[in-house]
Amino acid sequence: MSTPTRVPQEERTRVMRQRLLEATVECLVEVGFARTSTTLVSQRAGVSRGAQLHHFPTKNDLVLAAVGHVTQIRGSDLETAAATMPHGTRRTRAVLQMLGDHFASPVFSAALELWVAARTDPALLAAVGPLEQRVGREVHRLTVELLGIDEEVPGNRELIQATLDLVRGLGLANTISDDTRRRARILDRWADRLDAVLAAQPSSRDHSTKEQP
Amino acid sequence: MSTPTRVPQEERTRVMRQRLLEATVECLVEVGFARTSTTLVSQRAGVSRGAQLHHFPTKNDLVLAAVGHVTQIRGSDLETAAATMPHGTRRTRAVLQMLGDHFASPVFSAALELWVAARTDPALLAAVGPLEQRVGREVHRLTVELLGIDEEVPGNRELIQATLDLVRGLGLANTISDDTRRRARILDRWADRLDAVLAAQPSSRDHSTKEQP
Repeated sequence: MSTPTRVPQEERTRVMRQRLLEATVECLVEVGFARTSTTLVSQRAGVSRGAQLHHFPTKNDLVLAAVGHVTQIRGSDLETAAATMPHGTRRTRAVLQMLGDHFASPVFSAALELWVAARTDPALLAAVGPLEQRVGREVHRLTVELLGIDEEVPGNRELIQATLDLVRGLGLANTISDDTRRRARILDRWADRLDAVLAAQPSSRDHSTKEQP
Repeated sequence: MSTPTRVPQEERTRVMRQRLLEATVECLVEVGFARTSTTLVSQRAGVSRGAQLHHFPTKNDLVLAAVGHVTQIRGSDLETAAATMPHGTRRTRAVLQMLGDHFASPVFSAALELWVAARTDPALLAAVGPLEQRVGREVHRLTVELLGIDEEVPGNRELIQATLDLVRGLGLANTISDDTRRRARILDRWADRLDAVLAAQPSSRDHSTKEQP
């Protein structure tokens, strides 16, 4: 039997952990992985040092939890954006815009910081590697579904992979200078090419590109 | 009038600076930007602390010089690889292989470390930004030349930009796991698509893709 205070306590814990993880992501975006510290995170979250150390005793604990948090944000951001995609002829370009926006967002910068730190940190890599694979598979599945692509057609799988590697490359280019206009021109053309390739495979796209009634 | 010892002294200085910069790039690749220190670099280069501090008093000095050094290596690596490209039907795939290899090389990891550190370090960004732009323009020019592409044809410029953003994205994916096989499949298909698009523009490719006698 649970005590009357149990649920509020659990809720307080959940909220505090959430604030600490959000502050960690903000620190990663603003000062980078190396300068993100438990002190900076607790200040930013408005959480006492004691409480912060209770939940995440080391930077490593905080960062590993932040990896999961970033993965979750990326997944839910994409699912939310996916729900607003138009049907018809503008759909492909809109899907590319959504992907391009995702890889140019602050949360991509946070993921990039974790990704690059993991390259030379085996413990972090053990956490980042599997989660990045999961995000990668998830984004791939979502893109295939949104574009209504039949992956049984030879070459289609690689075309979607290339599209996702393209937006990842565009995301990286965008981290040190605002690349919005160049990205828009590239995605305009890429959408035309995708549509031209996929137009030769009419059966695979019927359900997703038809105009809504 | 120069003294007899002047040239050897200049040569010794040049060699020592070169060793320090090479050691810096190796440290960036192996331990990352944050853990690269002047101490670690002087140990690795086999150069005394005193001599190292004479040439590069701070990590900042070392890193800014390394940015230039990495840019130079990237340029000359690409020029060297470009000189070996085959002519004829295998050319497009070979050029993509060369670009893919470049963005999967240790020197790309070093550049990535500098790039990501520069994102949250204005002084470093002021050095990295312009040099990255120069490398970007240089790689673009080289790719256009190697593929014999007419950039006056609408869409061709964006096609090359997309190709370079694609290989940059592939390079980033390769930093935390060996992505060689997936990359090869994607580049196989992309070469076919590039050739298909460019085959409709015969005049622009005559000089670069013809078989050698």
